[in-house]
Amino acid sequence: MILCRTLTELSEQLTKLKHNCSNRSNGSNGSVGFVPTMGYLHEGHASLLRRSRAENDISVLSIFVNPLQFGPNEDLDRYPRDEKRDLALAEECQVDLVFLPSTEEMYPKKPLTRVLVSGLTSKLCGASRPGHFDGVGMVVGKLFHLIGPTRAYFGMKDAQQVAVIQQMVDDLNYPVEIVPCPIVREPDGLALSSRNVYLSAEERAEAVVLSQTLQAAAQWIQEDGMTAEALLERVRQQISNAHHADIDYAELYTYPSLEEVPAAAPILLQSDKLILALAVKFGSTRLIDNRLLYPNEVINHA
Amino acid sequence: MILCRTLTELSEQLTKLKHNCSNRSNGSNGSVGFVPTMGYLHEGHASLLRRSRAENDISVLSIFVNPLQFGPNEDLDRYPRDEKRDLALAEECQVDLVFLPSTEEMYPKKPLTRVLVSGLTSKLCGASRPGHFDGVGMVVGKLFHLIGPTRAYFGMKDAQQVAVIQQMVDDLNYPVEIVPCPIVREPDGLALSSRNVYLSAEERAEAVVLSQTLQAAAQWIQEDGMTAEALLERVRQQISNAHHADIDYAELYTYPSLEEVPAAAPILLQSDKLILALAVKFGSTRLIDNRLLYPNEVINHA
Repeated sequence: MILCRTLTELSEQLTKLKHNCSNRSNGSNGSVGFVPTMGYLHEGHASLLRRSRAENDISVLSIFVNPLQFGPNEDLDRYPRDEKRDLALAEECQVDLVFLPSTEEMYPKKPLTRVLVSGLTSKLCGASRPGHFDGVGMVVGKLFHLIGPTRAYFGMKDAQQVAVIQQMVDDLNYPVEIVPCPIVREPDGLALSSRNVYLSAEERAEAVVLSQTLQAAAQWIQEDGMTAEALLERVRQQISNAHHADIDYAELYTYPSLEEVPAAAPILLQSDKLILALAVKFGSTRLIDNRLLYPNEVINHA
Repeated sequence: MILCRTLTELSEQLTKLKHNCSNRSNGSNGSVGFVPTMGYLHEGHASLLRRSRAENDISVLSIFVNPLQFGPNEDLDRYPRDEKRDLALAEECQVDLVFLPSTEEMYPKKPLTRVLVSGLTSKLCGASRPGHFDGVGMVVGKLFHLIGPTRAYFGMKDAQQVAVIQQMVDDLNYPVEIVPCPIVREPDGLALSSRNVYLSAEERAEAVVLSQTLQAAAQWIQEDGMTAEALLERVRQQISNAHHADIDYAELYTYPSLEEVPAAAPILLQSDKLILALAVKFGSTRLIDNRLLYPNEVINHA
């Protein structure tokens, strides 16, 4: 496994890897799978890395805690890091190359360029974390240029991020296929997140309310005449039963376009794929989770 | 010469061209030279195409009048077009592939993504043409992704555009080398421009004042104690002698950073490369021209 910390190393090593592929006679075409992460890898990341390995000739992982996507009062400084453990997991997932740049390497000067995706970024985490998706667009745009991936793998836990990146890729014709991958969960349902380590034992126990509520909501939505308004009321009620839960948002939108769902109309008449998205603070730790809902499929199968 | 009007054709034909290169035994590595234009080609474009041909294995020209870089009251609808003549010139310059997309092909949906370069774009043409460089950044970003050039060639007549694109490429790590190329002029000094066809005979005769003033300014700047203020006063005075000339701007900045030059300090003490940039309307036709000035070189050679 190759480790690169500078853009120069990365460029040299990628060229070598691609060259080696094109010299093989096994029909490999040098396709590159790419998993961008902020490190402190868990089984969710591993699932992306395994898929990248299975579907491409070359598999690349980046680990970079991108300061541009953190707000001034967020957890940039205390974001968890464990390079040694990350590299062991990467090796286990047969990653060919890990790119581990410093902030100076990624941002040698303050960038004057911004990549903004309007509409999609004004809601959910975009509303709670102003500038967050501008930072995501920036770093993902840079990494795509540096790595030149054929396919890039993103977890659906950050469903809004997937929608924003797909929009950016479509609008700017980035030559990369975005591959959304399922959320990986703990046995009790909690979505895996690097931030779960922040939780106290009590908060950790309560945090299961997120996945439980999402699962319940997939049932509630099937009730005759259920409206977005009523569904979200029930969702908020259930989450609030957890003592430490402080709801940032609990919203229903179309996915991936993130358009409003009429509040008072029966959801079952809705033809789009929907997302029920949650952001809830437990103590000082903000967790997100979501579930895609297919109202029409329910009708078709009823 | 291959002609592509759709993204699908372009992708297929580029893959073929690159594949053919890699199968040659002449050491070619499939490097791609790219000249993005809005068509109605003149000798300035031809100079870019010849350089692209000389320096690369594959030479690509795009012709696309990008609506996003025109303001609501600008000349999008009357922008001159002559596809047949453009293709003949491209053939003469040994272009391998011409990409001629429709607006629908480039913008199938209204893009939600914007590529903004702050600072550099607030001055000169950015101030006179709000949104112009956002449109330029968008289309150049898209074309870079669609073509995947090794080198892209731009004329220095649009010096601010070159600075903005270089900034975007640096900030976002686009894997492309930006090659700025000298302004090509008519025998009397007028910078070549597709918009010169708009000029009446009288306006055309007067328009020579731009290049003449730039040339004179290169002398004036050598005068002891000459300040930016005094230089620009003289520049504006000389241009105003042309009856039809209506000055949009005549400004002195550092280049490529486009920072202010102290108005009242002697220019010869200035250590940066400077640009004297002009935008002047003759009738309804807005022309631009510029000249790079090297104050320190003058000192060194004095």
